[in-house]
Amino acid sequence: MGARKGRAIFLKAFPQGMPTPDLFEIRDYEAPEPKDGELQIRAVWMSVDPYMRGRMRPDIKSYIPPFTLDKPLDGGVVGQVIASRHPDFAEGDYVVGFEGGWRDYATVQGAGVQKVFPALAPLSAFLGVLGMPGLTAWSGLTQILKPKEGETLFVSGAAGAVGSLVCQLGKLKGLRVVGSAGSPEKCAWLEKEAGVDVAVNYKDHKDAAALTKALAKAAPNGVDCYFENVGGMHLEAALNCINNRARIALCGLISMYNLTAPEPGPSNLVNLLARSALMQGFIVSIYVDLAPQFAGEVAPLLAQGKIKFRESVYDGLERAPEAFMGLFKGENFGKAVVRIGPDEA
Amino acid sequence: MGARKGRAIFLKAFPQGMPTPDLFEIRDYEAPEPKDGELQIRAVWMSVDPYMRGRMRPDIKSYIPPFTLDKPLDGGVVGQVIASRHPDFAEGDYVVGFEGGWRDYATVQGAGVQKVFPALAPLSAFLGVLGMPGLTAWSGLTQILKPKEGETLFVSGAAGAVGSLVCQLGKLKGLRVVGSAGSPEKCAWLEKEAGVDVAVNYKDHKDAAALTKALAKAAPNGVDCYFENVGGMHLEAALNCINNRARIALCGLISMYNLTAPEPGPSNLVNLLARSALMQGFIVSIYVDLAPQFAGEVAPLLAQGKIKFRESVYDGLERAPEAFMGLFKGENFGKAVVRIGPDEA
Repeated sequence: MGARKGRAIFLKAFPQGMPTPDLFEIRDYEAPEPKDGELQIRAVWMSVDPYMRGRMRPDIKSYIPPFTLDKPLDGGVVGQVIASRHPDFAEGDYVVGFEGGWRDYATVQGAGVQKVFPALAPLSAFLGVLGMPGLTAWSGLTQILKPKEGETLFVSGAAGAVGSLVCQLGKLKGLRVVGSAGSPEKCAWLEKEAGVDVAVNYKDHKDAAALTKALAKAAPNGVDCYFENVGGMHLEAALNCINNRARIALCGLISMYNLTAPEPGPSNLVNLLARSALMQGFIVSIYVDLAPQFAGEVAPLLAQGKIKFRESVYDGLERAPEAFMGLFKGENFGKAVVRIGPDEA
Repeated sequence: MGARKGRAIFLKAFPQGMPTPDLFEIRDYEAPEPKDGELQIRAVWMSVDPYMRGRMRPDIKSYIPPFTLDKPLDGGVVGQVIASRHPDFAEGDYVVGFEGGWRDYATVQGAGVQKVFPALAPLSAFLGVLGMPGLTAWSGLTQILKPKEGETLFVSGAAGAVGSLVCQLGKLKGLRVVGSAGSPEKCAWLEKEAGVDVAVNYKDHKDAAALTKALAKAAPNGVDCYFENVGGMHLEAALNCINNRARIALCGLISMYNLTAPEPGPSNLVNLLARSALMQGFIVSIYVDLAPQFAGEVAPLLAQGKIKFRESVYDGLERAPEAFMGLFKGENFGKAVVRIGPDEA
């Protein structure tokens, strides 16, 4: 047991607007010797997620502290324990945690990770459909949207890690589901594999008015539930189509995260009022206590093949910045994950 | 019993932007002879309310049908029954209804009105603090904001019919209350009579950034509950100051109602997400079943002098357009009501 030498990704400067490759640097990094209660892990998979962009704005108060330039970037990781000073974990165990990503080896709090079982699903799934994005999808749907059978659900970013699960859980609950995504391939997958009723390629629609028409056609009975991952013209179009007593789960606004100047919000918020509709923002951490309920519902669906998921796999820690930047360019399909090491050492 | 001749206010054309006096016309109008289930009433007071502006947009689908040019305008009225063909009402009774305003005599459905008792409060109060605006204030506070003692409540349009009751109910619930209004006189009344902790004159602040500073100073622990009557820079400032798990009751957006082109929404909706906050739009009619509970709580407070209210009284049916236009110019203080006839015939 001791410190463990490897590599990690650092930010050299905070991005202004869209992140660029020159801002990232791979450097030597030594995971310290674990203290009492800590584990040392060898990373197998790491996660890139849109919320990380928010941690690159040191000037803005948020729900999670900003990254600093003198430490590695951080985020979700699945790894294998190589040294343990926590009684619940032994060498060889696989764990998932929200901290410890972006590096070959990490030393993390045992209290901050959970064991994962490779027999249940591929290890990377614990960063996606069975991990934080999965809990996000399930919580927004069940705790905020609370759909009733026969209602219409609209999901933006529908081919993403969160959206694709929302769509499929929606279908399993007997909803009409309309999803939007940014390519014909994603739309085809949504309709043919994920089973959504209509997939709309938002890139075919130049503005909110055009997207509104497409959505109104795809949702002839109006929108009862909207799972928002994107913002901008998506939110405006959805607000145009909501029914009385509609619910909006505000989960992400990815179209806004790289703006250098604030962009105005939708001009039709009055529809929330006129239709007595709800918009609830949320951060998945407020639902962390529901993780066992989520896993109990979704893991069996996955095992039975009733839930499908896609991944965009980037091989090698050095490709993590590319995976991250791909989130904002629509380049990823399903969950973006980075393979750092082999499943077994 | 028969038809009853009087006058009524008609719209000659729908307003574009701010309504102007030339759009209104007072004409002879005959209230028809009541049929079975109907009443004929002599109007004593009528109400002008911001939502009526929405009924002057015949092109927009809303929760209530638009006005037409070939019938009188319509709205809340307190009147005395002069002829009844409904078993629950007798000649001489006083009633309040949501329809039948803007005219000297009206024939209305007995099922659409409720008896009011002059001994309980001045008749005009049944159009304000004990009427629809009162129910609006109480419902938004108790059903959406659900404040906990010690929290901070921000109210825009705080000197208005709805806002002034929200502020006072908030104080009675042990909240820190910050109200915004548009004149020094209104702010003085809010602090000295209604008991709010800090009243902000929004006209002292040129934009959302300036109003944000004033609100942050008035609400040093942040805003937990926001009762929104105004929109525009008020919503943006409130979103800048909300705490985690804040609630926003979206009741009115009066700053937007006379725009000729849509105005963008706030650029900081992302704060709803980052702070897991809720924004719930509502129309008072969804809470109409709670009217008895509202009256049971607020009428005694009024009788005990624990709730104060202001009225802007306009004398004469012919002044109703002026009262209505005053809603959008900040000219009214408290509830705007129009006296059409004497209490007793």
